[in-house]
Amino acid sequence: MYSYKCVVSYEGTRYNGWQKQGNTANTLQHKIEEILSKHLDESIEIVGSGRTDAGVHALGQVFHFHCKQMLIPNNDPSSFLTAINNHLPQDIRIVSIEYCHPRFHARLNAVKKTYRYQIDISTYGNLFLRNVSHHVPTPLDIGAMKKGADLLLGTHDFKSFCSNKRMKKSSVRTIYDIVIEENASENLLTLTFTGNGFLYNMVRILSGTLIEIGLGLRNPEEIPAMLEGGNRGLTGHTAPAKGLFLMNVEYD
Amino acid sequence: MYSYKCVVSYEGTRYNGWQKQGNTANTLQHKIEEILSKHLDESIEIVGSGRTDAGVHALGQVFHFHCKQMLIPNNDPSSFLTAINNHLPQDIRIVSIEYCHPRFHARLNAVKKTYRYQIDISTYGNLFLRNVSHHVPTPLDIGAMKKGADLLLGTHDFKSFCSNKRMKKSSVRTIYDIVIEENASENLLTLTFTGNGFLYNMVRILSGTLIEIGLGLRNPEEIPAMLEGGNRGLTGHTAPAKGLFLMNVEYD
Repeated sequence: MYSYKCVVSYEGTRYNGWQKQGNTANTLQHKIEEILSKHLDESIEIVGSGRTDAGVHALGQVFHFHCKQMLIPNNDPSSFLTAINNHLPQDIRIVSIEYCHPRFHARLNAVKKTYRYQIDISTYGNLFLRNVSHHVPTPLDIGAMKKGADLLLGTHDFKSFCSNKRMKKSSVRTIYDIVIEENASENLLTLTFTGNGFLYNMVRILSGTLIEIGLGLRNPEEIPAMLEGGNRGLTGHTAPAKGLFLMNVEYD
Repeated sequence: MYSYKCVVSYEGTRYNGWQKQGNTANTLQHKIEEILSKHLDESIEIVGSGRTDAGVHALGQVFHFHCKQMLIPNNDPSSFLTAINNHLPQDIRIVSIEYCHPRFHARLNAVKKTYRYQIDISTYGNLFLRNVSHHVPTPLDIGAMKKGADLLLGTHDFKSFCSNKRMKKSSVRTIYDIVIEENASENLLTLTFTGNGFLYNMVRILSGTLIEIGLGLRNPEEIPAMLEGGNRGLTGHTAPAKGLFLMNVEYD
Protein backbone atom coordinates (compact mmCIF):
# COMPACT_ATOMS: atom_id res chain seq x y z
CA MET A 1 0.00 0.00 0.00
CA TYR A 2 1.31 3.45 -0.88
CA SER A 3 0.28 6.73 0.71
CA TYR A 4 0.01 10.00 -1.16
CA LYS A 5 -0.36 13.68 -0.36
CA CYS A 6 -1.89 15.83 -3.09
CA VAL A 7 -2.43 19.55 -3.55
CA VAL A 8 -5.56 20.48 -5.48
CA SER A 9 -7.00 23.75 -6.88
CA TYR A 10 -10.64 24.22 -7.68
CA GLU A 11 -13.25 26.81 -8.49
CA GLY A 12 -16.06 25.99 -6.06
CA THR A 13 -18.85 27.72 -8.02
CA ARG A 14 -20.47 24.55 -9.38
CA TYR A 15 -20.00 22.39 -6.27
CA ASN A 16 -21.82 21.75 -3.06
CA GLY A 17 -18.62 22.31 -1.05
CA TRP A 18 -15.76 19.94 -0.30
CA GLN A 19 -17.93 17.52 1.64
CA LYS A 20 -21.46 17.85 2.87
CA GLN A 21 -22.60 15.89 5.87
CA GLY A 22 -25.13 13.26 4.91
CA ASN A 23 -25.07 14.14 1.23
CA THR A 24 -21.98 13.43 -0.83
CA ALA A 25 -23.46 14.16 -4.27
CA ASN A 26 -21.86 16.96 -6.25
CA THR A 27 -19.14 17.63 -3.71
CA LEU A 28 -15.50 18.12 -4.62
CA GLN A 29 -14.45 15.15 -2.50
CA HIS A 30 -16.99 12.91 -4.23
CA LYS A 31 -15.97 14.08 -7.71
CA ILE A 32 -12.24 13.60 -7.05
CA GLU A 33 -12.79 10.16 -5.47
CA GLU A 34 -14.91 9.12 -8.44
CA ILE A 35 -12.29 10.14 -11.01
CA LEU A 36 -9.35 8.70 -9.02
CA SER A 37 -11.17 5.38 -8.45
CA LYS A 38 -12.07 5.08 -12.11
CA HIS A 39 -8.61 6.04 -13.34
CA LEU A 40 -6.80 3.71 -10.90
CA ASP A 41 -9.42 0.96 -11.09
CA GLU A 42 -9.55 0.62 -7.30
CA SER A 43 -11.74 2.22 -4.69
CA ILE A 44 -10.09 5.42 -3.44
CA GLU A 45 -11.13 7.45 -0.43
CA ILE A 46 -9.55 10.85 0.07
CA VAL A 47 -9.25 12.89 3.27
CA GLY A 48 -9.03 16.67 2.92
CA SER A 49 -7.38 19.18 5.24
CA GLY A 50 -10.84 20.46 6.04
CA ARG A 51 -14.17 21.27 4.46
CA THR A 52 -14.74 24.25 2.24
CA ASP A 53 -18.28 25.60 1.90
CA ALA A 54 -20.34 25.56 -1.29
CA GLY A 55 -18.96 28.24 -3.62
CA VAL A 56 -15.58 28.53 -1.85
CA HIS A 57 -12.45 28.08 -4.00
CA ALA A 58 -9.00 26.65 -3.35
CA LEU A 59 -5.55 27.24 -4.74
CA GLY A 60 -3.91 24.79 -2.36
CA GLN A 61 -6.32 22.39 -0.66
CA VAL A 62 -4.47 19.26 0.55
CA PHE A 63 -5.75 15.69 0.74
CA HIS A 64 -4.23 12.27 1.37
CA PHE A 65 -5.17 8.82 0.17
CA HIS A 66 -3.87 5.26 0.09
CA CYS A 67 -3.67 3.04 -2.95
CA LYS A 68 -2.08 -0.21 -4.09
CA GLN A 69 -0.24 1.34 -7.00
CA MET A 70 3.00 3.20 -7.40
CA LEU A 71 1.94 6.44 -9.04
CA ILE A 72 5.24 8.33 -9.16
CA PRO A 73 7.69 6.22 -11.21
CA ASN A 74 11.30 7.54 -11.02
CA ASN A 75 10.01 10.29 -8.76
CA ASP A 76 8.37 11.92 -11.77
CA PRO A 77 4.73 12.81 -11.09
CA SER A 78 4.11 14.39 -14.50
CA SER A 79 2.53 11.41 -16.28
CA PHE A 80 0.10 10.78 -13.41
CA LEU A 81 -0.77 14.49 -13.14
CA THR A 82 -1.28 14.89 -16.87
CA ALA A 83 -3.53 11.82 -17.03
CA ILE A 84 -5.63 12.62 -13.96
CA ASN A 85 -6.12 16.24 -14.98
CA ASN A 86 -7.33 15.07 -18.37
CA HIS A 87 -10.05 13.12 -16.57
CA LEU A 88 -10.97 15.77 -14.01
CA PRO A 89 -13.45 18.54 -14.89
CA GLN A 90 -11.77 21.77 -15.97
CA ASP A 91 -12.59 23.50 -12.67
CA ILE A 92 -10.53 21.00 -10.63
CA ARG A 93 -6.74 20.58 -11.09
CA ILE A 94 -4.48 18.36 -9.03
CA VAL A 95 -1.27 20.40 -9.01
CA SER A 96 1.08 18.07 -7.12
CA ILE A 97 1.37 14.55 -5.73
CA GLU A 98 4.06 13.13 -3.48
CA TYR A 99 4.63 10.05 -1.36
CA CYS A 100 3.83 10.57 2.32
CA HIS A 101 4.12 8.63 5.57
CA PRO A 102 1.32 6.04 5.89
CA ARG A 103 0.19 7.81 9.06
CA PHE A 104 0.16 11.29 7.47
CA HIS A 105 -3.28 12.84 7.96
CA ALA A 106 -4.21 15.90 5.88
CA ARG A 107 -6.56 17.28 8.54
CA LEU A 108 -5.05 16.19 11.85
CA ASN A 109 -1.45 17.04 10.94
CA ALA A 110 -2.16 20.51 9.51
CA VAL A 111 -0.43 23.18 11.61
CA LYS A 112 -1.11 26.33 9.62
CA LYS A 113 -3.67 27.43 7.06
CA THR A 114 -3.93 30.50 4.88
CA TYR A 115 -7.20 31.81 3.47
CA ARG A 116 -7.74 34.82 1.23
CA TYR A 117 -10.90 36.88 0.90
CA GLN A 118 -11.17 38.82 -2.37
CA ILE A 119 -13.24 42.02 -2.59
CA ASP A 120 -13.98 43.69 -5.93
CA ILE A 121 -14.02 47.42 -5.12
CA SER A 122 -14.78 48.62 -8.66
CA THR A 123 -17.84 50.80 -9.18
CA TYR A 124 -19.84 48.54 -11.48
CA GLY A 125 -18.21 45.18 -10.76
CA ASN A 126 -15.45 43.40 -12.69
CA LEU A 127 -17.35 40.82 -14.67
CA PHE A 128 -14.28 38.60 -15.01
CA LEU A 129 -14.15 38.29 -11.20
CA ARG A 130 -17.88 37.76 -10.64
CA ASN A 131 -17.52 34.17 -9.37
CA VAL A 132 -14.30 34.71 -7.41
CA SER A 133 -14.87 37.94 -5.51
CA HIS A 134 -17.44 39.81 -3.44
CA HIS A 135 -18.40 43.13 -5.02
CA VAL A 136 -18.46 46.07 -2.59
CA PRO A 137 -18.86 49.30 -4.61
CA THR A 138 -19.07 51.63 -1.57
CA PRO A 139 -15.61 53.02 -0.65
CA LEU A 140 -13.98 51.19 2.27
CA ASP A 141 -11.86 52.78 4.99
CA ILE A 142 -8.87 50.48 4.69
CA GLY A 143 -7.07 52.12 7.62
CA ALA A 144 -9.95 51.24 9.94
CA MET A 145 -10.02 47.67 8.60
CA LYS A 146 -6.29 47.32 9.33
CA LYS A 147 -6.86 48.57 12.90
CA GLY A 148 -9.61 45.99 13.37
CA ALA A 149 -7.43 43.25 11.87
CA ASP A 150 -4.59 44.03 14.31
CA LEU A 151 -6.97 43.51 17.24
CA LEU A 152 -7.87 40.05 15.92
CA LEU A 153 -4.28 38.77 15.92
CA GLY A 154 -3.12 36.26 18.50
CA THR A 155 -4.81 33.52 20.49
CA HIS A 156 -8.48 34.09 21.32
CA ASP A 157 -11.72 32.23 21.79
CA PHE A 158 -13.33 32.92 18.41
CA LYS A 159 -16.77 31.59 19.38
CA SER A 160 -18.46 34.82 18.22
CA PHE A 161 -16.90 34.27 14.80
CA CYS A 162 -18.32 30.77 14.33
CA SER A 163 -21.64 29.74 12.73
CA ASN A 164 -21.80 26.40 14.50
CA LYS A 165 -23.93 26.97 17.59
CA ARG A 166 -23.56 23.43 18.85
CA MET A 167 -19.75 23.59 18.81
CA LYS A 168 -18.63 21.24 21.55
CA LYS A 169 -14.88 21.34 21.03
CA SER A 170 -12.65 24.28 21.88
CA SER A 171 -13.17 27.39 19.81
CA VAL A 172 -9.78 28.83 20.74
CA ARG A 173 -7.61 29.54 17.72
CA THR A 174 -4.50 31.55 16.92
CA ILE A 175 -4.37 34.03 14.05
CA TYR A 176 -0.73 34.69 13.14
CA ASP A 177 -1.27 37.28 10.48
CA ILE A 178 -3.89 39.27 8.58
CA VAL A 179 -2.62 41.12 5.52
CA ILE A 180 -4.90 43.68 3.85
CA GLU A 181 -3.70 44.72 0.41
CA GLU A 182 -5.20 46.96 -2.22
CA ASN A 183 -4.38 46.34 -5.86
CA ALA A 184 -5.45 49.70 -7.24
CA SER A 185 -4.94 48.81 -10.91
CA GLU A 186 -7.28 45.82 -10.58
CA ASN A 187 -9.66 47.48 -8.09
CA LEU A 188 -9.18 44.51 -5.81
CA LEU A 189 -8.87 44.38 -2.04
CA THR A 190 -7.56 41.13 -0.53
CA LEU A 191 -7.69 40.06 3.10
CA THR A 192 -5.22 37.24 3.77
CA PHE A 193 -5.61 35.32 7.04
CA THR A 194 -3.01 32.89 8.40
CA GLY A 195 -3.74 30.87 11.52
CA ASN A 196 -3.37 27.49 13.17
CA GLY A 197 -6.94 26.64 12.20
CA PHE A 198 -10.31 28.25 11.54
CA LEU A 199 -13.80 27.47 12.85
CA TYR A 200 -16.86 26.89 10.66
CA ASN A 201 -17.46 30.08 8.61
CA MET A 202 -14.84 31.90 10.69
CA VAL A 203 -12.96 33.52 7.78
CA ARG A 204 -16.22 34.65 6.19
CA ILE A 205 -17.44 36.19 9.48
CA LEU A 206 -14.04 37.83 10.05
CA SER A 207 -14.26 39.23 6.50
CA GLY A 208 -17.87 40.39 6.91
CA THR A 209 -16.96 42.11 10.18
CA LEU A 210 -13.92 43.84 8.65
CA ILE A 211 -16.02 44.95 5.67
CA GLU A 212 -18.60 46.48 8.06
CA ILE A 213 -15.74 48.29 9.80
CA GLY A 214 -14.53 49.52 6.39
CA LEU A 215 -18.03 50.79 5.63
CA GLY A 216 -18.13 52.71 8.92
CA LEU A 217 -20.98 50.56 10.27
CA ARG A 218 -18.77 49.33 13.09
CA ASN A 219 -15.79 50.62 15.01
CA PRO A 220 -12.50 48.69 15.08
CA GLU A 221 -12.39 49.26 18.85
CA GLU A 222 -15.41 46.95 19.20
CA ILE A 223 -13.28 43.89 18.34
CA PRO A 224 -12.12 43.05 21.91
CA ALA A 225 -15.73 43.10 23.16
CA MET A 226 -16.76 40.87 20.24
CA LEU A 227 -14.08 38.35 21.20
CA GLU A 228 -14.95 38.47 24.90
CA GLY A 229 -18.72 38.26 24.36
CA GLY A 230 -18.59 34.83 22.76
CA ASN A 231 -21.85 35.56 20.95
CA ARG A 232 -22.39 35.33 17.18
CA GLY A 233 -24.85 38.24 17.47
CA LEU A 234 -22.00 40.64 18.23
CA THR A 235 -20.09 40.15 14.96
CA GLY A 236 -20.68 41.08 11.34
CA HIS A 237 -22.40 39.21 8.52
CA THR A 238 -21.03 36.06 6.92
CA ALA A 239 -19.41 37.41 3.75
CA PRO A 240 -20.43 35.53 0.56
CA ALA A 241 -18.64 32.24 -0.12
CA LYS A 242 -17.56 33.17 -3.66
CA GLY A 243 -14.92 35.65 -2.39
CA LEU A 244 -13.08 33.02 -0.33
CA PHE A 245 -9.99 30.99 -1.31
CA LEU A 246 -8.15 28.34 0.70
CA MET A 247 -4.60 29.34 -0.29
CA ASN A 248 -2.46 26.70 1.38
CA VAL A 249 -2.09 24.27 4.24
CA GLU A 250 1.19 23.73 6.04
CA TYR A 251 2.50 20.68 7.87
CA ASP A 252 5.46 20.15 10.20
CA MET B 1 -32.99 62.69 -30.63
CA TYR B 2 -29.83 62.17 -28.59
CA SER B 3 -26.75 60.20 -29.64
CA TYR B 4 -24.65 58.14 -27.27
CA LYS B 5 -21.28 56.42 -27.30
CA CYS B 6 -20.86 53.54 -24.84
CA VAL B 7 -17.96 51.36 -23.77
CA VAL B 8 -18.88 47.79 -22.85
CA SER B 9 -17.00 44.83 -21.31
CA TYR B 10 -18.11 41.26 -21.72
CA GLU B 11 -17.03 37.68 -21.29
CA GLY B 12 -17.87 36.10 -24.64
CA THR B 13 -17.99 32.49 -23.41
CA ARG B 14 -21.80 32.14 -23.45
CA TYR B 15 -22.43 34.16 -26.59
CA ASN B 16 -22.49 33.56 -30.28
CA GLY B 17 -20.22 36.54 -30.93
CA TRP B 18 -21.04 40.22 -31.18
CA GLN B 19 -23.21 39.81 -34.25
CA LYS B 20 -23.71 36.84 -36.49
CA GLN B 21 -24.76 37.34 -40.06
CA GLY B 22 -28.25 36.02 -40.67
CA ASN B 23 -28.75 34.88 -37.07
CA THR B 24 -29.03 37.43 -34.33
CA ALA B 25 -30.10 35.11 -31.50
CA ASN B 26 -27.80 34.86 -28.50
CA THR B 27 -25.40 37.50 -29.73
CA LEU B 28 -24.04 40.29 -27.56
CA GLN B 29 -25.55 42.95 -29.81
CA HIS B 30 -28.97 41.31 -29.61
CA LYS B 31 -28.83 40.94 -25.82
CA ILE B 32 -27.72 44.56 -25.26
CA GLU B 33 -30.37 45.89 -27.67
CA GLU B 34 -33.04 43.84 -25.91
CA ILE B 35 -32.14 45.13 -22.44
CA LEU B 36 -31.70 48.76 -23.59
CA SER B 37 -35.02 48.72 -25.48
CA LYS B 38 -36.87 47.27 -22.49
CA HIS B 39 -35.27 49.62 -20.00
CA LEU B 40 -35.83 52.73 -22.14
CA ASP B 41 -39.20 51.59 -23.48
CA GLU B 42 -38.23 52.45 -27.05
CA SER B 43 -36.69 50.40 -29.81
CA ILE B 44 -32.89 50.76 -29.67
CA GLU B 45 -30.42 49.64 -32.32
CA ILE B 46 -26.74 49.66 -31.47
CA VAL B 47 -23.74 49.76 -33.83
CA GLY B 48 -20.49 48.23 -32.57
CA SER B 49 -16.93 49.12 -33.56
CA GLY B 50 -16.71 45.70 -35.19
CA ARG B 51 -17.69 42.10 -34.69
CA THR B 52 -16.04 39.84 -32.16
CA ASP B 53 -16.21 36.08 -32.74
CA ALA B 54 -18.05 33.59 -30.55
CA GLY B 55 -16.03 33.15 -27.33
CA VAL B 56 -14.01 36.36 -27.74
CA HIS B 57 -14.09 38.82 -24.81
CA ALA B 58 -13.94 42.60 -24.56
CA LEU B 59 -12.73 45.05 -21.99
CA GLY B 60 -13.48 48.05 -24.18
CA GLN B 61 -15.82 47.37 -27.08
CA VAL B 62 -17.49 50.59 -28.27
CA PHE B 63 -20.99 51.06 -29.69
CA HIS B 64 -23.22 54.01 -30.51
CA PHE B 65 -26.99 54.41 -30.53
CA HIS B 66 -29.68 57.06 -30.83
CA CYS B 67 -32.60 57.52 -28.49
CA LYS B 68 -35.27 60.06 -27.64
CA GLN B 69 -34.32 60.35 -24.00
CA MET B 70 -31.72 62.31 -22.10
CA LEU B 71 -29.81 59.64 -20.23
CA ILE B 72 -27.06 61.69 -18.58
CA PRO B 73 -28.78 64.30 -16.37
CA ASN B 74 -26.34 66.92 -15.01
CA ASN B 75 -23.59 65.12 -16.88
CA ASP B 76 -23.75 62.31 -14.32
CA PRO B 77 -23.98 58.86 -15.97
CA SER B 78 -24.01 56.91 -12.70
CA SER B 79 -27.76 56.42 -12.30
CA PHE B 80 -28.15 55.20 -15.90
CA LEU B 81 -25.12 52.89 -15.58
CA THR B 82 -26.25 51.44 -12.26
CA ALA B 83 -29.75 50.78 -13.58
CA ILE B 84 -28.72 49.27 -16.92
CA ASN B 85 -26.07 47.04 -15.33
CA ASN B 86 -28.69 45.74 -12.92
CA HIS B 87 -30.70 44.60 -15.93
CA LEU B 88 -27.82 43.22 -17.99
CA PRO B 89 -26.54 39.66 -17.39
CA GLN B 90 -23.52 39.51 -15.09
CA ASP B 91 -21.15 38.76 -17.98
CA ILE B 92 -21.92 42.09 -19.71
CA ARG B 93 -21.16 45.49 -18.10
CA ILE B 94 -21.60 48.89 -19.73
CA VAL B 95 -18.72 50.82 -18.20
CA SER B 96 -19.30 54.28 -19.65
CA ILE B 97 -21.78 56.37 -21.61
CA GLU B 98 -21.32 59.83 -23.08
CA TYR B 99 -23.08 62.11 -25.53
CA CYS B 100 -21.63 62.00 -29.04
CA HIS B 101 -22.09 63.80 -32.34
CA PRO B 102 -25.22 62.54 -34.18
CA ARG B 103 -22.96 61.49 -37.05
CA PHE B 104 -20.47 59.60 -34.83
CA HIS B 105 -20.13 56.02 -36.09
CA ALA B 106 -18.48 53.45 -33.82
CA ARG B 107 -17.16 51.38 -36.73
CA LEU B 108 -16.47 53.90 -39.49
CA ASN B 109 -14.81 56.48 -37.23
CA ALA B 110 -12.52 54.04 -35.40
CA VAL B 111 -8.86 54.87 -36.11
CA LYS B 112 -7.02 52.49 -33.80
CA LYS B 113 -7.83 49.20 -32.07
CA THR B 114 -5.98 47.18 -29.47
CA TYR B 115 -6.45 43.44 -29.00
CA ARG B 116 -4.77 41.19 -26.45
CA TYR B 117 -4.17 37.46 -26.76
CA GLN B 118 -3.71 35.69 -23.43
CA ILE B 119 -1.69 32.45 -23.20
CA ASP B 120 -1.63 30.35 -20.02
CA ILE B 121 1.90 28.90 -19.93
CA SER B 122 1.46 26.93 -16.68
CA THR B 123 2.13 23.19 -16.81
CA TYR B 124 -1.34 21.90 -15.93
CA GLY B 125 -3.45 24.95 -16.76
CA ASN B 126 -4.73 27.68 -14.44
CA LEU B 127 -8.34 26.68 -13.91
CA PHE B 128 -9.34 30.26 -13.02
CA LEU B 129 -8.23 31.35 -16.52
CA ARG B 130 -9.78 28.44 -18.42
CA ASN B 131 -12.36 30.59 -20.28
CA VAL B 132 -10.10 33.59 -20.83
CA SER B 133 -6.81 32.12 -22.03
CA HIS B 134 -5.34 29.53 -24.37
CA HIS B 135 -3.30 26.92 -22.50
CA VAL B 136 0.09 26.14 -24.07
CA PRO B 137 2.06 23.94 -21.64
CA THR B 138 5.07 23.45 -23.96
CA PRO B 139 7.78 26.07 -23.28
CA LEU B 140 7.76 28.92 -25.80
CA ASP B 141 10.83 30.70 -27.21
CA ILE B 142 9.72 34.24 -26.43
CA GLY B 143 12.78 35.77 -28.12
CA ALA B 144 11.83 34.12 -31.43
CA MET B 145 8.22 35.29 -31.02
CA LYS B 146 9.43 38.87 -30.52
CA LYS B 147 11.57 38.62 -33.68
CA GLY B 148 8.54 37.41 -35.62
CA ALA B 149 6.38 40.17 -34.14
CA ASP B 150 8.85 42.85 -35.23
CA LEU B 151 8.61 41.64 -38.82
CA LEU B 152 4.82 42.04 -38.73
CA LEU B 153 4.94 45.72 -37.80
CA GLY B 154 4.04 48.38 -40.35
CA THR B 155 1.76 48.53 -43.34
CA HIS B 156 1.29 45.26 -45.22
CA ASP B 157 -1.29 43.33 -47.17
CA PHE B 158 -2.40 40.88 -44.46
CA LYS B 159 -4.41 38.66 -46.82
CA SER B 160 -2.57 35.52 -45.59
CA PHE B 161 -3.69 36.37 -42.07
CA CYS B 162 -7.40 36.52 -42.93
CA SER B 163 -9.98 33.72 -42.82
CA ASN B 164 -12.34 35.41 -45.25
CA LYS B 165 -11.52 33.97 -48.66
CA ARG B 166 -14.07 36.08 -50.47
CA MET B 167 -12.61 39.32 -49.12
CA LYS B 168 -13.35 41.94 -51.77
CA LYS B 169 -12.14 45.06 -50.02
CA SER B 170 -8.52 45.93 -49.37
CA SER B 171 -6.70 43.69 -46.94
CA VAL B 172 -3.95 46.25 -46.33
CA ARG B 173 -3.66 47.18 -42.66
CA THR B 174 -1.09 48.86 -40.42
CA ILE B 175 0.12 47.29 -37.20
CA TYR B 176 1.62 50.00 -34.98
CA ASP B 177 2.79 47.84 -32.14
CA ILE B 178 2.98 44.27 -30.84
CA VAL B 179 3.98 43.92 -27.19
CA ILE B 180 4.85 40.47 -25.86
CA GLU B 181 4.97 40.32 -22.08
CA GLU B 182 5.51 37.46 -19.67
CA ASN B 183 3.97 37.65 -16.21
CA ALA B 184 6.08 34.96 -14.54
CA SER B 185 4.21 34.97 -11.23
CA GLU B 186 0.91 34.27 -13.01
CA ASN B 187 2.41 32.04 -15.72
CA LEU B 188 0.76 34.23 -18.30
CA LEU B 189 2.06 35.40 -21.67
CA THR B 190 0.20 38.25 -23.35
CA LEU B 191 0.47 39.40 -26.96
CA THR B 192 -0.93 42.92 -27.38
CA PHE B 193 -1.61 44.13 -30.92
CA THR B 194 -2.37 47.73 -31.85
CA GLY B 195 -3.30 48.64 -35.39
CA ASN B 196 -5.56 50.78 -37.53
CA GLY B 197 -7.85 47.81 -38.08
CA PHE B 198 -7.82 44.03 -38.25
CA LEU B 199 -9.25 41.59 -40.80
CA TYR B 200 -11.56 38.67 -39.99
CA ASN B 201 -9.69 36.34 -37.56
CA MET B 202 -6.47 38.30 -38.17
CA VAL B 203 -5.43 38.61 -34.50
CA ARG B 204 -6.11 34.92 -33.89
CA ILE B 205 -4.04 33.91 -36.95
CA LEU B 206 -1.24 36.30 -35.96
CA SER B 207 -1.32 34.75 -32.46
CA GLY B 208 -1.40 31.18 -33.81
CA THR B 209 1.54 31.95 -36.09
CA LEU B 210 3.57 33.54 -33.27
CA ILE B 211 2.78 30.56 -31.01
CA GLU B 212 4.05 28.19 -33.73
CA ILE B 213 7.22 30.30 -33.93
CA GLY B 214 7.53 30.06 -30.13
CA LEU B 215 7.18 26.28 -30.33
CA GLY B 216 9.96 26.12 -32.94
CA LEU B 217 7.57 24.83 -35.62
CA ARG B 218 8.21 27.91 -37.73
CA ASN B 219 11.04 30.36 -38.16
CA PRO B 220 10.51 34.10 -37.55
CA GLU B 221 12.34 34.77 -40.82
CA GLU B 222 9.40 33.20 -42.69
CA ILE B 223 7.18 36.19 -41.87
CA PRO B 224 8.06 38.36 -44.93
CA ALA B 225 7.30 35.44 -47.27
CA MET B 226 4.00 34.86 -45.48
CA LEU B 227 3.05 38.49 -46.03
CA GLU B 228 4.13 38.49 -49.67
CA GLY B 229 2.46 35.17 -50.50
CA GLY B 230 -1.06 36.40 -49.79
CA ASN B 231 -2.15 32.85 -49.07
CA ARG B 232 -3.84 31.62 -45.87
CA GLY B 233 -2.01 28.29 -46.31
CA LEU B 234 1.31 29.94 -45.48
CA THR B 235 0.41 31.09 -41.97
CA GLY B 236 -0.24 29.36 -38.65
CA HIS B 237 -3.44 28.05 -37.09
CA THR B 238 -6.27 30.26 -35.88
CA ALA B 239 -5.62 30.41 -32.13
CA PRO B 240 -8.72 29.62 -29.99
CA ALA B 241 -11.22 32.45 -29.52
CA LYS B 242 -11.27 32.23 -25.72
CA GLY B 243 -7.76 33.77 -25.40
CA LEU B 244 -8.71 36.96 -27.24
CA PHE B 245 -9.78 40.32 -25.78
CA LEU B 246 -10.77 43.52 -27.58
CA MET B 247 -9.03 45.97 -25.25
CA ASN B 248 -10.01 49.34 -26.65
CA VAL B 249 -11.01 51.33 -29.69
CA GLU B 250 -9.77 54.83 -30.34
CA TYR B 251 -11.33 57.70 -32.28
CA ASP B 252 -9.99 61.04 -33.50
